[in-house]
Amino acid sequence: MSLDNIRIVMVNTSHPGNIGAAARVMKNMGLQHFFLVQPKKFPHPDAISMAAGADDLLEQAVIVDSLEEALSGCHLVLGTTARLRKLQHQIFEPREAVEKIAEISSHQQIAIVFGRERTGLTNEESDLCQLLINIPTVAEHASLNVASAIQVLAYELYLAHRTRDNRDERINKDLPATHDEVENYFSHLEETILKTGFLNPKQSPQLMPKLRRLYYRCGLEKNEINILRGILASFDTKQ
Amino acid sequence: MSLDNIRIVMVNTSHPGNIGAAARVMKNMGLQHFFLVQPKKFPHPDAISMAAGADDLLEQAVIVDSLEEALSGCHLVLGTTARLRKLQHQIFEPREAVEKIAEISSHQQIAIVFGRERTGLTNEESDLCQLLINIPTVAEHASLNVASAIQVLAYELYLAHRTRDNRDERINKDLPATHDEVENYFSHLEETILKTGFLNPKQSPQLMPKLRRLYYRCGLEKNEINILRGILASFDTKQ
Repeated sequence: MSLDNIRIVMVNTSHPGNIGAAARVMKNMGLQHFFLVQPKKFPHPDAISMAAGADDLLEQAVIVDSLEEALSGCHLVLGTTARLRKLQHQIFEPREAVEKIAEISSHQQIAIVFGRERTGLTNEESDLCQLLINIPTVAEHASLNVASAIQVLAYELYLAHRTRDNRDERINKDLPATHDEVENYFSHLEETILKTGFLNPKQSPQLMPKLRRLYYRCGLEKNEINILRGILASFDTKQ
Repeated sequence: MSLDNIRIVMVNTSHPGNIGAAARVMKNMGLQHFFLVQPKKFPHPDAISMAAGADDLLEQAVIVDSLEEALSGCHLVLGTTARLRKLQHQIFEPREAVEKIAEISSHQQIAIVFGRERTGLTNEESDLCQLLINIPTVAEHASLNVASAIQVLAYELYLAHRTRDNRDERINKDLPATHDEVENYFSHLEETILKTGFLNPKQSPQLMPKLRRLYYRCGLEKNEINILRGILASFDTKQ
Protein backbone atom coordinates (compact mmCIF):
# COMPACT_ATOMS: atom_id res chain seq x y z
CA MET A 1 0.00 0.00 0.00
CA SER A 2 1.60 3.22 -1.14
CA LEU A 3 0.19 6.39 0.43
CA ASP A 4 2.24 8.40 -2.02
CA ASN A 5 -0.20 7.85 -4.91
CA ILE A 6 -3.24 8.98 -2.96
CA ARG A 7 -4.63 12.49 -3.10
CA ILE A 8 -7.18 14.01 -0.75
CA VAL A 9 -9.56 16.39 -2.53
CA MET A 10 -11.81 18.85 -0.64
CA VAL A 11 -14.54 20.49 -2.72
CA ASN A 12 -15.75 24.03 -2.04
CA THR A 13 -15.01 23.92 1.68
CA SER A 14 -16.63 26.79 3.64
CA HIS A 15 -14.64 26.79 6.88
CA PRO A 16 -10.86 27.21 6.62
CA GLY A 17 -10.57 25.55 10.04
CA ASN A 18 -11.73 22.32 8.42
CA ILE A 19 -9.00 22.61 5.79
CA GLY A 20 -6.42 23.03 8.54
CA ALA A 21 -7.84 20.12 10.52
CA ALA A 22 -7.69 17.98 7.37
CA ALA A 23 -4.03 18.90 6.83
CA ARG A 24 -3.24 17.82 10.38
CA VAL A 25 -5.03 14.50 9.89
CA MET A 26 -3.08 13.91 6.67
CA LYS A 27 0.22 14.66 8.39
CA ASN A 28 -0.62 12.28 11.25
CA MET A 29 -1.48 9.52 8.82
CA GLY A 30 1.31 9.92 6.27
CA LEU A 31 -0.71 11.44 3.42
CA GLN A 32 0.73 14.40 1.53
CA HIS A 33 -1.13 15.22 -1.69
CA PHE A 34 -3.79 17.80 -0.92
CA PHE A 35 -6.13 19.37 -3.51
CA LEU A 36 -8.60 22.15 -2.79
CA VAL A 37 -11.35 22.84 -5.32
CA GLN A 38 -12.58 26.44 -4.93
CA PRO A 39 -12.14 26.76 -1.17
CA LYS A 40 -14.34 29.62 0.13
CA LYS A 41 -11.61 31.20 2.33
CA PHE A 42 -8.04 30.12 1.83
CA PRO A 43 -5.35 30.86 2.91
CA HIS A 44 -6.73 31.84 6.31
CA PRO A 45 -5.41 32.05 9.89
CA ASP A 46 -8.00 29.48 11.08
CA ALA A 47 -6.52 26.93 8.67
CA ILE A 48 -3.03 27.48 10.07
CA SER A 49 -4.26 27.33 13.63
CA MET A 50 -6.10 24.01 13.10
CA ALA A 51 -3.22 22.52 11.09
CA ALA A 52 -1.13 22.50 14.29
CA GLY A 53 2.21 22.08 12.57
CA ALA A 54 1.06 20.73 9.23
CA ASP A 55 1.67 24.13 7.63
CA ASP A 56 3.76 22.54 4.90
CA LEU A 57 0.73 20.61 3.68
CA LEU A 58 -1.29 23.83 3.53
CA GLU A 59 1.49 25.55 1.59
CA GLN A 60 1.80 22.70 -0.89
CA ALA A 61 -1.97 22.31 -1.36
CA VAL A 62 -2.97 22.49 -5.02
CA ILE A 63 -5.83 24.96 -5.49
CA VAL A 64 -7.95 24.40 -8.60
CA ASP A 65 -11.16 25.71 -10.13
CA SER A 66 -12.91 22.45 -10.90
CA LEU A 67 -13.13 18.92 -9.59
CA GLU A 68 -12.10 17.67 -13.05
CA GLU A 69 -8.76 19.47 -12.69
CA ALA A 70 -8.18 17.91 -9.30
CA LEU A 71 -8.83 14.45 -10.77
CA SER A 72 -6.61 14.80 -13.80
CA GLY A 73 -4.36 11.75 -14.20
CA CYS A 74 -6.24 9.68 -11.62
CA HIS A 75 -7.18 6.07 -12.31
CA LEU A 76 -9.54 5.54 -9.42
CA VAL A 77 -11.78 8.26 -7.96
CA LEU A 78 -13.71 7.61 -4.76
CA GLY A 79 -16.32 10.04 -3.46
CA THR A 80 -17.69 10.21 0.06
CA THR A 81 -21.36 10.50 0.91
CA ALA A 82 -23.55 10.58 3.99
CA ARG A 83 -26.50 9.38 1.91
CA LEU A 84 -26.99 5.74 1.02
CA ARG A 85 -29.47 6.25 -1.77
CA LYS A 86 -27.24 7.16 -4.66
CA LEU A 87 -28.63 4.36 -6.76
CA GLN A 88 -26.24 4.56 -9.65
CA HIS A 89 -23.18 3.88 -7.48
CA GLN A 90 -21.74 1.01 -5.58
CA ILE A 91 -21.34 2.13 -1.98
CA PHE A 92 -18.49 0.84 0.15
CA GLU A 93 -17.53 1.20 3.76
CA PRO A 94 -14.13 2.76 4.47
CA ARG A 95 -12.44 -0.56 5.16
CA GLU A 96 -13.77 -2.15 1.97
CA ALA A 97 -12.78 0.89 -0.06
CA VAL A 98 -9.28 0.84 1.40
CA GLU A 99 -8.92 -2.81 0.36
CA LYS A 100 -9.64 -1.79 -3.22
CA ILE A 101 -7.19 1.08 -2.97
CA ALA A 102 -4.50 -1.19 -1.54
CA GLU A 103 -4.69 -3.48 -4.55
CA ILE A 104 -3.73 -0.77 -6.99
CA SER A 105 -1.99 1.96 -5.02
CA SER A 106 1.53 0.92 -5.97
CA HIS A 107 1.05 1.79 -9.63
CA GLN A 108 -2.11 3.88 -10.00
CA GLN A 109 -3.20 7.35 -8.96
CA ILE A 110 -6.12 7.50 -6.55
CA ALA A 111 -8.28 10.42 -5.40
CA ILE A 112 -10.65 10.50 -2.44
CA VAL A 113 -13.12 13.35 -2.71
CA PHE A 114 -14.88 15.12 0.19
CA GLY A 115 -17.79 17.50 -0.49
CA ARG A 116 -19.14 20.65 1.10
CA GLU A 117 -19.82 20.84 4.85
CA ARG A 118 -23.59 21.12 4.53
CA THR A 119 -24.48 19.54 1.24
CA GLY A 120 -21.64 17.17 0.32
CA LEU A 121 -21.05 16.45 -3.35
CA THR A 122 -23.51 17.38 -6.08
CA ASN A 123 -24.89 14.63 -8.30
CA GLU A 124 -22.66 15.84 -11.12
CA GLU A 125 -19.61 15.59 -8.87
CA SER A 126 -20.62 12.13 -7.65
CA ASP A 127 -20.93 11.05 -11.27
CA LEU A 128 -17.21 11.72 -11.68
CA CYS A 129 -16.50 9.16 -8.94
CA GLN A 130 -16.23 5.48 -9.82
CA LEU A 131 -17.40 4.47 -6.39
CA LEU A 132 -18.74 6.04 -3.24
CA ILE A 133 -17.75 5.57 0.37
CA ASN A 134 -20.18 5.84 3.25
CA ILE A 135 -18.93 5.96 6.82
CA PRO A 136 -21.30 3.95 9.02
CA THR A 137 -23.24 6.12 11.50
CA VAL A 138 -26.54 6.04 13.30
CA ALA A 139 -29.22 6.65 10.67
CA GLU A 140 -30.61 9.84 12.23
CA HIS A 141 -27.25 11.62 12.46
CA ALA A 142 -25.36 10.61 9.38
CA SER A 143 -23.50 13.83 8.61
CA LEU A 144 -19.93 13.85 9.89
CA ASN A 145 -17.73 16.90 10.10
CA VAL A 146 -15.63 16.82 6.93
CA ALA A 147 -12.31 16.67 8.79
CA SER A 148 -13.73 13.82 10.90
CA ALA A 149 -14.61 11.95 7.73
CA ILE A 150 -11.08 12.49 6.41
CA GLN A 151 -9.77 11.22 9.77
CA VAL A 152 -11.68 7.95 9.43
CA LEU A 153 -10.48 7.31 5.89
CA ALA A 154 -6.91 8.37 6.66
CA TYR A 155 -6.88 6.09 9.70
CA GLU A 156 -8.01 3.11 7.64
CA LEU A 157 -5.47 3.96 4.93
CA TYR A 158 -2.66 4.20 7.44
CA LEU A 159 -3.59 0.88 9.07
CA ALA A 160 -3.54 -0.81 5.67
CA HIS A 161 -0.29 0.92 4.75
CA ARG A 162 1.44 -0.10 7.91
CA THR A 163 0.47 -3.76 7.77
CA ARG A 164 0.71 -4.18 4.04
CA ASP A 165 4.01 -2.45 3.56
CA ASN A 166 5.93 -5.61 2.89
CA ARG A 167 3.16 -7.48 1.20
CA ASP A 168 3.33 -8.16 -2.50
CA GLU A 169 0.63 -6.30 -4.25
CA ARG A 170 -1.30 -7.83 -7.05
CA ILE A 171 -0.24 -6.10 -10.20
CA ASN A 172 -2.44 -6.02 -13.26
CA LYS A 173 -0.59 -6.83 -16.43
CA ASP A 174 -2.82 -4.55 -18.41
CA LEU A 175 -2.66 -0.83 -17.98
CA PRO A 176 -5.71 0.81 -16.46
CA ALA A 177 -7.36 3.63 -18.35
CA THR A 178 -6.97 7.11 -16.87
CA HIS A 179 -9.87 9.23 -15.74
CA ASP A 180 -9.52 11.34 -18.89
CA GLU A 181 -9.64 8.33 -21.22
CA VAL A 182 -12.76 7.02 -19.52
CA GLU A 183 -14.40 10.46 -19.73
CA ASN A 184 -13.61 10.67 -23.45
CA TYR A 185 -15.24 7.29 -23.94
CA PHE A 186 -18.40 8.45 -22.16
CA SER A 187 -18.51 11.57 -24.38
CA HIS A 188 -18.13 9.43 -27.50
CA LEU A 189 -20.82 7.02 -26.30
CA GLU A 190 -23.24 9.80 -25.43
CA GLU A 191 -22.71 11.52 -28.76
CA THR A 192 -23.32 8.28 -30.64
CA ILE A 193 -26.53 7.26 -28.89
CA LEU A 194 -27.84 10.79 -29.20
CA LYS A 195 -27.39 10.39 -32.96
CA THR A 196 -29.15 7.05 -33.10
CA GLY A 197 -31.96 8.47 -31.02
CA PHE A 198 -31.55 5.91 -28.20
CA LEU A 199 -30.69 8.69 -25.77
CA ASN A 200 -33.30 11.36 -25.21
CA PRO A 201 -31.85 13.37 -22.31
CA LYS A 202 -35.22 14.82 -21.30
CA GLN A 203 -36.95 11.47 -21.18
CA SER A 204 -34.06 9.51 -19.66
CA PRO A 205 -31.83 11.74 -17.52
CA GLN A 206 -30.63 8.64 -15.66
CA LEU A 207 -29.34 6.77 -18.71
CA MET A 208 -25.80 8.19 -18.79
CA PRO A 209 -25.35 7.90 -14.99
CA LYS A 210 -26.41 4.25 -15.25
CA LEU A 211 -23.91 3.60 -18.02
CA ARG A 212 -21.21 5.35 -16.00
CA ARG A 213 -21.96 3.17 -13.02
CA LEU A 214 -21.72 0.04 -15.15
CA TYR A 215 -18.36 0.91 -16.69
CA TYR A 216 -16.85 2.39 -13.53
CA ARG A 217 -17.54 -0.91 -11.84
CA CYS A 218 -15.44 -2.70 -14.45
CA GLY A 219 -12.27 -0.71 -13.90
CA LEU A 220 -11.67 -0.27 -17.64
CA GLU A 221 -8.25 -0.91 -19.14
CA LYS A 222 -6.62 1.15 -21.88
CA ASN A 223 -7.00 -1.58 -24.50
CA GLU A 224 -10.65 -2.02 -23.59
CA ILE A 225 -11.31 1.67 -24.09
CA ASN A 226 -9.77 1.29 -27.55
CA ILE A 227 -12.10 -1.60 -28.36
CA LEU A 228 -15.21 0.18 -27.06
CA ARG A 229 -14.39 3.36 -28.97
CA GLY A 230 -13.60 1.28 -32.05
CA ILE A 231 -17.09 -0.18 -31.86
CA LEU A 232 -18.62 3.28 -31.62
CA ALA A 233 -16.48 4.54 -34.51
CA SER A 234 -17.64 1.60 -36.65
CA PHE A 235 -21.22 2.74 -36.15
CA ASP A 236 -20.33 6.31 -37.03
CA THR A 237 -18.69 5.20 -40.26
CA LYS A 238 -21.63 3.02 -41.23
CA GLN A 239 -24.19 5.78 -40.91
CA MET B 1 -21.87 -4.54 21.99
CA SER B 2 -23.85 -2.01 24.00
CA LEU B 3 -22.90 1.63 23.46
CA ASP B 4 -25.18 2.59 26.31
CA ASN B 5 -22.64 1.57 28.97
CA ILE B 6 -19.78 3.58 27.50
CA ARG B 7 -18.84 7.07 28.61
CA ILE B 8 -16.51 9.48 26.86
CA VAL B 9 -14.42 11.56 29.29
CA MET B 10 -12.53 14.71 28.23
CA VAL B 11 -10.00 16.04 30.75
CA ASN B 12 -9.23 19.75 31.12
CA THR B 13 -10.01 20.59 27.49
CA SER B 14 -8.78 24.07 26.43
CA HIS B 15 -10.81 24.73 23.28
CA PRO B 16 -14.59 24.57 23.57
CA GLY B 17 -14.73 23.90 19.79
CA ASN B 18 -13.15 20.51 20.50
CA ILE B 19 -15.86 19.74 23.05
CA GLY B 20 -18.52 20.58 20.47
CA ALA B 21 -16.77 18.51 17.80
CA ALA B 22 -16.60 15.59 20.22
CA ALA B 23 -20.34 15.86 20.91
CA ARG B 24 -21.03 15.72 17.19
CA VAL B 25 -18.84 12.64 16.79
CA MET B 26 -20.66 10.94 19.66
CA LYS B 27 -24.05 11.73 18.17
CA ASN B 28 -22.97 10.37 14.77
CA MET B 29 -21.73 7.16 16.33
CA GLY B 30 -24.51 6.48 18.84
CA LEU B 31 -22.65 7.40 22.04
CA GLN B 32 -24.44 9.51 24.63
CA HIS B 33 -22.65 9.62 27.99
CA PHE B 34 -20.36 12.63 28.02
CA PHE B 35 -18.19 13.69 30.99
CA LEU B 36 -16.11 16.86 31.14
CA VAL B 37 -13.42 17.15 33.81
CA GLN B 38 -12.66 20.84 34.49
CA PRO B 39 -13.17 22.15 30.95
CA LYS B 40 -11.38 25.50 30.54
CA LYS B 41 -14.30 27.25 28.81
CA PHE B 42 -17.71 25.67 28.92
CA PRO B 43 -20.48 26.33 28.03
CA HIS B 44 -19.27 28.38 25.06
CA PRO B 45 -20.67 29.40 21.63
CA ASP B 46 -17.79 27.59 19.85
CA ALA B 47 -18.91 24.34 21.43
CA ILE B 48 -22.46 24.81 20.19
CA SER B 49 -21.27 25.80 16.74
CA MET B 50 -19.02 22.72 16.34
CA ALA B 51 -21.66 20.40 17.80
CA ALA B 52 -23.79 20.99 14.69
CA GLY B 53 -27.04 19.70 16.14
CA ALA B 54 -25.66 17.63 19.01
CA ASP B 55 -26.67 20.35 21.49
CA ASP B 56 -28.51 17.82 23.61
CA LEU B 57 -25.24 16.02 24.33
CA LEU B 58 -23.66 19.31 25.41
CA GLU B 59 -26.60 20.06 27.68
CA GLN B 60 -26.53 16.62 29.24
CA ALA B 61 -22.74 16.58 29.67
CA VAL B 62 -21.72 15.87 33.26
CA ILE B 63 -19.19 18.45 34.44
CA VAL B 64 -16.98 17.30 37.30
CA ASP B 65 -13.94 18.52 39.23
CA SER B 66 -11.78 15.42 39.08
CA LEU B 67 -11.16 12.43 36.86
CA GLU B 68 -12.00 10.16 39.82
CA GLU B 69 -15.53 11.57 39.87
CA ALA B 70 -15.95 10.98 36.15
CA LEU B 71 -14.89 7.36 36.59
CA SER B 72 -17.19 6.62 39.49
CA GLY B 73 -19.02 3.32 38.96
CA CYS B 74 -16.84 2.23 36.02
CA HIS B 75 -15.52 -1.30 35.67
CA LEU B 76 -13.04 -0.70 32.89
CA VAL B 77 -11.16 2.56 32.27
CA LEU B 78 -9.19 3.09 29.08
CA GLY B 79 -6.92 6.08 28.58
CA THR B 80 -5.63 7.42 25.29
CA THR B 81 -2.03 8.41 24.62
CA ALA B 82 0.08 9.64 21.73
CA ARG B 83 3.20 8.35 23.46
CA LEU B 84 4.21 4.72 23.35
CA ARG B 85 6.56 4.85 26.34
CA LYS B 86 4.15 4.47 29.17
CA LEU B 87 5.91 1.34 30.31
CA GLN B 88 3.66 0.48 33.18
CA HIS B 89 0.68 -0.01 30.90
CA GLN B 90 -0.42 -2.39 28.26
CA ILE B 91 -0.97 -0.36 25.11
CA PHE B 92 -3.63 -1.39 22.64
CA GLU B 93 -4.67 -0.16 19.25
CA PRO B 94 -8.25 1.09 18.90
CA ARG B 95 -9.52 -2.09 17.28
CA GLU B 96 -7.99 -4.33 19.93
CA ALA B 97 -9.33 -2.11 22.69
CA VAL B 98 -12.81 -2.20 21.20
CA GLU B 99 -12.71 -6.01 21.16
CA LYS B 100 -12.06 -5.94 24.92
CA ILE B 101 -14.85 -3.42 25.41
CA ALA B 102 -17.26 -5.54 23.35
CA GLU B 103 -16.71 -8.52 25.62
CA ILE B 104 -17.99 -6.75 28.71
CA SER B 105 -20.10 -3.82 27.51
CA SER B 106 -23.43 -5.55 28.01
CA HIS B 107 -23.03 -5.71 31.77
CA GLN B 108 -20.19 -3.38 32.81
CA GLN B 109 -19.57 0.34 32.78
CA ILE B 110 -16.70 1.53 30.59
CA ALA B 111 -14.93 4.90 30.34
CA ILE B 112 -12.61 6.09 27.59
CA VAL B 113 -10.51 9.06 28.71
CA PHE B 114 -9.02 11.76 26.47
CA GLY B 115 -6.42 14.20 27.82
CA ARG B 116 -5.49 17.83 27.24
CA GLU B 117 -4.89 19.13 23.69
CA ARG B 118 -1.17 19.77 24.20
CA THR B 119 -0.06 17.46 26.95
CA GLY B 120 -2.54 14.60 27.09
CA LEU B 121 -3.03 12.80 30.40
CA THR B 122 -0.68 13.23 33.35
CA ASN B 123 1.04 10.15 34.77
CA GLU B 124 -1.31 10.27 37.76
CA GLU B 125 -4.32 10.28 35.44
CA SER B 126 -2.89 7.45 33.32
CA ASP B 127 -2.47 5.45 36.50
CA LEU B 128 -6.25 5.55 36.95
CA CYS B 129 -6.60 3.73 33.61
CA GLN B 130 -6.38 -0.06 33.41
CA LEU B 131 -5.12 0.10 29.89
CA LEU B 132 -4.02 2.65 27.35
CA ILE B 133 -4.99 3.08 23.71
CA ASN B 134 -2.63 4.46 21.09
CA ILE B 135 -3.93 5.39 17.64
CA PRO B 136 -1.35 4.40 14.99
CA THR B 137 0.25 7.38 13.23
CA VAL B 138 3.51 8.23 11.52
CA ALA B 139 6.14 8.42 14.26
CA GLU B 140 7.09 12.08 13.68
CA HIS B 141 3.52 13.41 13.90
CA ALA B 142 1.83 11.35 16.55
CA SER B 143 -0.40 13.96 18.16
CA LEU B 144 -3.97 13.90 16.90
CA ASN B 145 -6.54 16.59 17.51
CA VAL B 146 -8.57 15.36 20.50
CA ALA B 147 -11.87 15.32 18.59
CA SER B 148 -10.12 13.37 15.80
CA ALA B 149 -8.97 10.82 18.35
CA ILE B 150 -12.52 10.52 19.69
CA GLN B 151 -13.71 10.07 16.09
CA VAL B 152 -11.39 7.10 15.54
CA LEU B 153 -12.46 5.38 18.76
CA ALA B 154 -16.15 6.14 18.23
CA TYR B 155 -15.94 4.81 14.66
CA GLU B 156 -14.44 1.52 15.84
CA LEU B 157 -17.04 1.27 18.61
CA TYR B 158 -19.88 1.88 16.18
CA LEU B 159 -18.57 -0.70 13.70
CA ALA B 160 -18.48 -3.29 16.46
CA HIS B 161 -21.95 -2.25 17.62
CA ARG B 162 -23.95 -2.04 14.44
CA THR B 163 -25.22 -5.06 12.69
CA ARG B 164 -24.33 -5.45 9.11
CA ASP B 165 -27.92 -6.34 8.22
CA ASN B 166 -29.09 -2.98 9.36
CA ARG B 167 -26.95 -1.24 6.75
CA ASP B 168 -27.66 -3.62 3.90
CA GLU B 169 -31.37 -2.98 4.30
CA ARG B 170 -30.75 0.68 3.56
CA ILE B 171 -29.08 0.00 0.22
CA ASN B 172 -31.23 -0.90 -2.74
CA LYS B 173 -29.89 -3.86 -4.62
CA ASP B 174 -30.56 -4.36 -8.29
CA LEU B 175 -31.15 -7.83 -9.66
CA PRO B 176 -28.20 -9.51 -11.36
CA ALA B 177 -28.64 -10.69 -14.94
CA THR B 178 -28.89 -14.43 -15.55
CA HIS B 179 -26.34 -16.36 -17.57
CA ASP B 180 -28.79 -16.60 -20.49
CA GLU B 181 -29.44 -12.89 -20.51
CA VAL B 182 -25.71 -12.17 -20.61
CA GLU B 183 -25.19 -14.71 -23.40
CA ASN B 184 -28.03 -13.22 -25.44
CA TYR B 185 -26.39 -9.83 -25.07
CA PHE B 186 -23.07 -11.19 -26.35
CA SER B 187 -24.85 -12.74 -29.37
CA HIS B 188 -26.60 -9.47 -30.12
CA LEU B 189 -23.33 -7.52 -29.76
CA GLU B 190 -21.41 -9.93 -32.00
CA GLU B 191 -24.08 -9.87 -34.69
CA THR B 192 -24.13 -6.07 -34.66
CA ILE B 193 -20.39 -5.49 -34.91
CA LEU B 194 -20.15 -8.13 -37.63
CA LYS B 195 -22.68 -6.03 -39.57
CA THR B 196 -20.76 -2.78 -39.07
CA GLY B 197 -17.53 -4.52 -40.05
CA PHE B 198 -15.76 -3.80 -36.75
CA LEU B 199 -15.52 -7.51 -36.05
CA ASN B 200 -13.64 -9.62 -38.53
CA PRO B 201 -13.42 -13.02 -36.84
CA LYS B 202 -10.43 -14.16 -38.87
CA GLN B 203 -8.39 -11.06 -38.18
CA SER B 204 -9.44 -10.60 -34.53
CA PRO B 205 -10.31 -13.94 -32.96
CA GLN B 206 -9.60 -12.42 -29.55
CA LEU B 207 -12.06 -9.55 -29.79
CA MET B 208 -15.16 -11.31 -28.47
CA PRO B 209 -13.23 -13.03 -25.63
CA LYS B 210 -11.89 -9.60 -24.61
CA LEU B 211 -15.38 -8.11 -24.58
CA ARG B 212 -16.63 -11.08 -22.57
CA ARG B 213 -13.87 -10.57 -20.05
CA LEU B 214 -14.75 -6.89 -19.70
CA TYR B 215 -18.46 -7.44 -19.14
CA TYR B 216 -18.03 -10.51 -16.93
CA ARG B 217 -15.92 -8.37 -14.65
CA CYS B 218 -18.80 -5.93 -14.22
CA GLY B 219 -21.31 -8.44 -12.96
CA LEU B 220 -24.09 -7.09 -15.19
CA GLU B 221 -27.54 -6.37 -13.80
CA LYS B 222 -30.86 -7.04 -15.55
CA ASN B 223 -31.62 -3.37 -16.16
CA GLU B 224 -28.13 -2.83 -17.55
CA ILE B 225 -28.57 -5.64 -20.07
CA ASN B 226 -31.76 -3.90 -21.19
CA ILE B 227 -29.89 -0.64 -21.69
CA LEU B 228 -26.99 -2.25 -23.58
CA ARG B 229 -29.33 -4.18 -25.87
CA GLY B 230 -31.40 -1.04 -26.36
CA ILE B 231 -28.28 0.72 -27.62
CA LEU B 232 -27.55 -2.10 -30.07
CA ALA B 233 -31.16 -2.13 -31.26
CA SER B 234 -31.01 1.61 -31.88
CA PHE B 235 -28.07 1.02 -34.28
CA ASP B 236 -29.92 -1.78 -36.05
CA THR B 237 -32.92 0.44 -36.65
CA LYS B 238 -30.78 3.30 -37.91
CA GLN B 239 -29.05 1.20 -40.53
